Amino acid sequence: MTHSRLATFTVNGTLKYGAVTDDGIVDLSARYGGDYPTLREAIAHGALHRLADAAANQPADFALDAITWQPPIPAPEKIICIGVNYPDRNAEYKDGQDAPKYPSMFMRTPRSFVGHETPLVRPRVSRQLDYEGEVVLVIGKAGRHIAEGDALDHIAALTLCNEGTIRDWVRHAKFNVTQGKNFESTGSLGPWIVPYSDESQIADIRLTTHVNGELRQDDRTSRLMFGFRYLLSYISTFTTLVPGDVIVTGTPTGAGARFDPPRYLVPGDVIEIKADGIGTLRNGVVDEH
Amino acid sequence: MTHSRLATFTVNGTLKYGAVTDDGIVDLSARYGGDYPTLREAIAHGALHRLADAAANQPADFALDAITWQPPIPAPEKIICIGVNYPDRNAEYKDGQDAPKYPSMFMRTPRSFVGHETPLVRPRVSRQLDYEGEVVLVIGKAGRHIAEGDALDHIAALTLCNEGTIRDWVRHAKFNVTQGKNFESTGSLGPWIVPYSDESQIADIRLTTHVNGELRQDDRTSRLMFGFRYLLSYISTFTTLVPGDVIVTGTPTGAGARFDPPRYLVPGDVIEIKADGIGTLRNGVVDEH
Repeated sequence: MTHSRLATFTVNGTLKYGAVTDDGIVDLSARYGGDYPTLREAIAHGALHRLADAAANQPADFALDAITWQPPIPAPEKIICIGVNYPDRNAEYKDGQDAPKYPSMFMRTPRSFVGHETPLVRPRVSRQLDYEGEVVLVIGKAGRHIAEGDALDHIAALTLCNEGTIRDWVRHAKFNVTQGKNFESTGSLGPWIVPYSDESQIADIRLTTHVNGELRQDDRTSRLMFGFRYLLSYISTFTTLVPGDVIVTGTPTGAGARFDPPRYLVPGDVIEIKADGIGTLRNGVVDEH
Repeated sequence: MTHSRLATFTVNGTLKYGAVTDDGIVDLSARYGGDYPTLREAIAHGALHRLADAAANQPADFALDAITWQPPIPAPEKIICIGVNYPDRNAEYKDGQDAPKYPSMFMRTPRSFVGHETPLVRPRVSRQLDYEGEVVLVIGKAGRHIAEGDALDHIAALTLCNEGTIRDWVRHAKFNVTQGKNFESTGSLGPWIVPYSDESQIADIRLTTHVNGELRQDDRTSRLMFGFRYLLSYISTFTTLVPGDVIVTGTPTGAGARFDPPRYLVPGDVIEIKADGIGTLRNGVVDEH
């Protein structure tokens, strides 16, 4: 396979990590858990490529249907999400006149996310659960005041996000989308992380979202308004990026709220976020009980 | 003393916690650190009152000038800050007509805060560091969908926040104040936590902010637009509150940005946030070097 894939998962409720192979998962936490309790510590020690190499040609310890996928980094220090960051081909950004000068951003808690193949939860208080497919950068090397020229050196790995959103609750306040972006188990991260090697991996990723097999979002990272180098440099102006930090880099046009009438998610829907060289993040939808 | 005071601090770089007495600090982490590595775990085990009792009549282990105060909860799962939440006596809220229906909120990272007596840092990129004095609720009991009638049972302790803000950077994006609220070491939490006992402790706290001895903010929690019971119930609609979560409940009118011309903080300023029954949180200001 082209890229290694490292996943966090549970088996009978125990949190583990390992390498995804064609046959299943090679349990790396059994061998390296003492040194690196989670992939966050493995990243902090620059050990992702070592872990991937150690798993090569090893037999799988678990079949994929025997595990529950979890978000790859169980407890990142911070999860920073970027707002509108792809050109909207229908509306205000088509001529660049109304493009914002700086990116909009907000934070999400780890508990607003589930892993691959675990259903998103439509909360009791809203019928407006929506999808947003996004490419995610996982930070490897700590830094503050990072120059754009050095920014990519701070990336450890890539993953995907369904940055699921409760549309009516993002408008509860005139500013700040916090509550609509932080409903428990409304988003997903995964399915795994792919170690970062060089810029060719991220320069022009095709990112798509399908709902029940229908293409809804389709764009390329080469068209980002605020590119990866800029984002890492800008964020590090105000905060120190640390290993395991999760940067969710924005979603293309085509979320359910953009349709007339809107096409929100309902129980039974299946959402697939797919990106070249990373994989496919798939989640169903259930109602909060 | 009326209320017990439990603090987190470092001595020679080692993180500890203890009880503040008239003579100094009784080191409780030396005795209870195995059971409760930080005050977050002590809170999760409902042990605050036990810790306070254990320290009563004990000799101090450290003089106050021998320690460095730290934010009381070193790594909360989440720090949720409420936007405008006191009536603004000069402007739009005086008749209640323009009062928002729901609170505005945003999150801050732990690294945007320092402890008591550690200077706030005015960043290189802005001259607009501003103060905001606020009362803080620390969550004790986990809960989701908490009824207002039960909400106060979920409070473990009280503390104070200088919710320091970089005013020009909160306006970088049309929505979301994230970057201006998350500059490293621009806010403070502390000086300690006071265990929560009953509603009389929080119903009508007088909260003041002084800059260099001049009164700038002065209001009472009885005048909050969104009261403590409502806030905990509302937040728990979208996320599970867990022990150690920090809820920063909003600032009165009188921040530096409200003056004409604005009165931003400069190196050498001393800001004191004071609240009845909690204490005084004091910080200087230095420039980022």
